[in-house]
Amino acid sequence: MRVGFYQFQPRFGRPGENAEAVAAAVREAGADLLVAPELAVSGYVFASREESAALSETLPGPSTQLISAACRQAGGRAVLGIAERARDGFYNSAALVGPDGVEGVYRKAHLFGEEKLHFSAGRGGFPVFTIRAAGAEVRIGMLVCFDHFFPEAARTLALAGAQIICHPSNLVLPEYAQLSSRVRSIESRVFWVLANRYGTEDRGGGKTLTFTGASQVTAPDGKVLVRAPAEGDDLQVVEIDPAQADDKNVTARNNLWEDRRPELYRL
Amino acid sequence: MRVGFYQFQPRFGRPGENAEAVAAAVREAGADLLVAPELAVSGYVFASREESAALSETLPGPSTQLISAACRQAGGRAVLGIAERARDGFYNSAALVGPDGVEGVYRKAHLFGEEKLHFSAGRGGFPVFTIRAAGAEVRIGMLVCFDHFFPEAARTLALAGAQIICHPSNLVLPEYAQLSSRVRSIESRVFWVLANRYGTEDRGGGKTLTFTGASQVTAPDGKVLVRAPAEGDDLQVVEIDPAQADDKNVTARNNLWEDRRPELYRL
Repeated sequence: MRVGFYQFQPRFGRPGENAEAVAAAVREAGADLLVAPELAVSGYVFASREESAALSETLPGPSTQLISAACRQAGGRAVLGIAERARDGFYNSAALVGPDGVEGVYRKAHLFGEEKLHFSAGRGGFPVFTIRAAGAEVRIGMLVCFDHFFPEAARTLALAGAQIICHPSNLVLPEYAQLSSRVRSIESRVFWVLANRYGTEDRGGGKTLTFTGASQVTAPDGKVLVRAPAEGDDLQVVEIDPAQADDKNVTARNNLWEDRRPELYRL
Repeated sequence: MRVGFYQFQPRFGRPGENAEAVAAAVREAGADLLVAPELAVSGYVFASREESAALSETLPGPSTQLISAACRQAGGRAVLGIAERARDGFYNSAALVGPDGVEGVYRKAHLFGEEKLHFSAGRGGFPVFTIRAAGAEVRIGMLVCFDHFFPEAARTLALAGAQIICHPSNLVLPEYAQLSSRVRSIESRVFWVLANRYGTEDRGGGKTLTFTGASQVTAPDGKVLVRAPAEGDDLQVVEIDPAQADDKNVTARNNLWEDRRPELYRL
């Protein structure tokens, strides 16, 4: 199975252009699963609630339809971060998009900084979605950016059977997520695709953020399979065997799931 | 407050010599809290259950009495890994030793490899102990080696108020614990003192293990404050302010404890 990331710099407030960039990457990559950054369609630094609302869209909606068409052409799937307009509010979501449209939605549970002004925190937990890729069923989980800080989130996905965690991000703290996603891979023996954006988004009036790139794919043993530079567009795909994530043994006598002591944890 | 580690190479089956080495390090360091490796008194590679039983001792017992005397002289405390002979069996334990003797015991909950042949897994959970150091109360948690693999263990300690996690280890997998303890520091904003041993313990008949050194102290922001080389005796002490671990804010709008979503976690 071929998985990868598309690291790019969304243009703020140009949803058509950004969705087309993701669609083009899907066509070019020809991957089974390609992960794009958080809020990849809208951009990140909103000046007001009116602006974030106006740049949100339904799932399915115009951007996911465009990307779904690219998935039909390329025969793969994409996960991207997108501002979701739902019946009961707005969410910082990740969408799993396939040839037939939106196959899964995860709403970010741990909002970062000013995201709290624009979005509601997800209440749907951490669902696992099953896709078919390279002739096998593969179980996918999604997290968005700051979720990586909370070990319980990735752990919940892995215990529910996720083999690959897709992680659309707009990271501003250097190195943290690159470190933590390696450790999450090791501690739960899962693959992890971190897709970060790069560049500076300056909306004036001091509203400016610089994103840190360095997207990466890690394996269940913590090996970094591919990594992007801190800046610049980058599309990388790597061949993995997701079934490796089903083997939770670290030694002949240690199975990470059997060795857990849930009766002792106070979480 | 001055905390540190004593990285050394215990001599297998020479408890008096090893306990004296730890006691000498306590006197030399003059630290408020000095952490020594796992099974620092007995050595690690046991040939039989008879051997591990013979090299286990009560808590308190002769080794902790010797080390407690050094704590009285130096005015500090030590945490060390020790094979514990208890009424109901044998445990791979960590002992918190102070001027008045043993102040706390943690029994390893996640046993690694052949440890399962020699020890029972701890059933007492992850207790937090309060000591006085540098004029303030400081809350200490202990984990032993492979426990680091399980994010729930460190998380349980941090949620219970631990400011410093002491981590006596006999690590054989390179890099994993150095990575994960940094990430545990970041995700729970705690200090972490990893005390590893080094060198090869060859007991014949293929029973041989090489330990990876690289002991380190990390801060709540993930910074590695001091680190030992992969081989060689090393005694390092660093000044920290444990109260920094009480501040769980990562941004003006993000407090790691308030942002948790326990109702969504399935652990």
